[in-house]
Amino acid sequence: MAPRVLICGDLVWAHQECAQMFEGIGEVIVMDSTDRKSFLADLKPNGKYSGIVGCYRHNISADKIGIFDREIIQHLSSTGLKWIAHNGAGYDQIDVIACKDFGIVVSNTPGAVDDATATTALYLLISTLRQFSWAERSARSGTWKNPLSSRNAHDLTGHTLAILGLGGIGLRLAYLVHAFPMRVIYHNRNRVQDAPDWIEFYEGKDGLDRLLKEADVLSVHVPLRDDTEGMVGEEMIRKLRKGAVIINTARGKVIDEEALIRALEDGHLAAAGLDVYPSEPSINPKLLTFNNVTLLPHMGTETRDSQKKMEIRALANLRDYLVKGIGSDVVPELRGAKL
Amino acid sequence: MAPRVLICGDLVWAHQECAQMFEGIGEVIVMDSTDRKSFLADLKPNGKYSGIVGCYRHNISADKIGIFDREIIQHLSSTGLKWIAHNGAGYDQIDVIACKDFGIVVSNTPGAVDDATATTALYLLISTLRQFSWAERSARSGTWKNPLSSRNAHDLTGHTLAILGLGGIGLRLAYLVHAFPMRVIYHNRNRVQDAPDWIEFYEGKDGLDRLLKEADVLSVHVPLRDDTEGMVGEEMIRKLRKGAVIINTARGKVIDEEALIRALEDGHLAAAGLDVYPSEPSINPKLLTFNNVTLLPHMGTETRDSQKKMEIRALANLRDYLVKGIGSDVVPELRGAKL
Repeated sequence: MAPRVLICGDLVWAHQECAQMFEGIGEVIVMDSTDRKSFLADLKPNGKYSGIVGCYRHNISADKIGIFDREIIQHLSSTGLKWIAHNGAGYDQIDVIACKDFGIVVSNTPGAVDDATATTALYLLISTLRQFSWAERSARSGTWKNPLSSRNAHDLTGHTLAILGLGGIGLRLAYLVHAFPMRVIYHNRNRVQDAPDWIEFYEGKDGLDRLLKEADVLSVHVPLRDDTEGMVGEEMIRKLRKGAVIINTARGKVIDEEALIRALEDGHLAAAGLDVYPSEPSINPKLLTFNNVTLLPHMGTETRDSQKKMEIRALANLRDYLVKGIGSDVVPELRGAKL
Repeated sequence: MAPRVLICGDLVWAHQECAQMFEGIGEVIVMDSTDRKSFLADLKPNGKYSGIVGCYRHNISADKIGIFDREIIQHLSSTGLKWIAHNGAGYDQIDVIACKDFGIVVSNTPGAVDDATATTALYLLISTLRQFSWAERSARSGTWKNPLSSRNAHDLTGHTLAILGLGGIGLRLAYLVHAFPMRVIYHNRNRVQDAPDWIEFYEGKDGLDRLLKEADVLSVHVPLRDDTEGMVGEEMIRKLRKGAVIINTARGKVIDEEALIRALEDGHLAAAGLDVYPSEPSINPKLLTFNNVTLLPHMGTETRDSQKKMEIRALANLRDYLVKGIGSDVVPELRGAKL
């Protein structure tokens, strides 16, 4: 009998590719449970998902069955599941520690999101430095460019972009702004070996302090983990120079939102560009009151091109597990783990 | 007696530089006429502007004294004026033919605006392809990303940008999108000799037709002249493929607005990104009704960095005329003219 794999969350673009990729390899079942309770029941022996060995997951499945917490992981494990192929770069909706405990590998789709997410960060950069989001609201309200002033608008060219967390997205953003050029500096746990030498590494605690002092714009690209939650808080924000700008396309909770709002209120920050929020899809109404804040509804990877690329990447990881016993893009926490 | 020069329109950034640049060279007079009638009177012999030989001009002066039409040019000429140093790339508010008739040279500030204007075009490109302007309105109205769909959103990467008019701004935009990369093709009256070979030249009428057929996005960068007014009209727009996008950071009248609106209404165009309009500062209310139209209030060069660069460039052209009898950046219509 062919191994069974479960699709948790919509495949939008890669239906045809999915059928082709698993032909003769596995049986594809699409999750159609309407709530968590029925989902857990369906995972029981003789339930409709019994015997699944791998699962494709998209965050949209949380709308029906909730996030992949320890309870879901435990039930998945009981069917014999060994691989969760998550569609997305951020996998904070999966309890990877529970996965480790139950011997389940989690893969994500890191490279596939880099281009679309870095483009989103670039857009927020232009929008905040040039006051374009505010300008469009002004134009649409009939006041043309009043009361904006070019005094408060800046070119990207020649200014300094500080990247917090130089993974694939941060590196891609660095290449995009290098075209102007902006000066690019970064802080990371470790030096990134494949970074070009025009990106300057600011190492350690002292390095981070210097980076904050020199930044015109701080762009956040660290994943959400226990140790990064609230990382960009009062202390870091106040070390930025007055008039600096913060961009966040990573996860809302990496920034202490109250500290951000205080710094916008008292003018320490000149602007902020946000694609992510602590309690999505809700947006703190205070954020709507600032003229020079650009607010996108988590559009980082919302393109047909990138969505398809991500779906195929996640499916390929799942298929590789079935065929070879191992897929690519295993998340750092589970690399080399004895499973 | 030191020659007199007139500042028509605000110097915002370069007051100090202006004083230094003309120290010992010329007397700087700031135009303070409140309407056209008094301005023309003040240009008469023994008027307060009598004897001016050069003039710095910013479009903002039109708010008080109107554009530099033949009437104003004639009065300026009667004072002995020989040089108009216009601050801006587009000089459609100056009647250059009248200037030619009266032996007046006009300079503009071409290079100084390239970076800021190309950045504006890049922003409109991202905003329209990714539906970000619409997404922000959706987020601010409380509907998060509904009813947007990633089906209609595209990465820049791998798509084709067609540049209509490869001057400094178009060339700068080409370099910025080359970072993704997008494929870049252009149509121009003549091949641009300093264009890199990854920008493909589409020559002549046939070339233009092919360019329109292959474009995912058409970005307009031709100046407004009699022969370019309405150039992007029904015929050109319908030669674009269905679902194409138009960006305009040049001048509103280069596009036939009614043809553009028809193509947005019937879905031939997927989106438009506009920084300029035929009757600025008014915006055709129909444009506000389309979700995927991004509307900026002529923000192309609205940055403190670029404004200062432009002011100094225009003042330097004026100063050079006083010192050397010739300045740089003479507009094409007046190059080599017998003055």
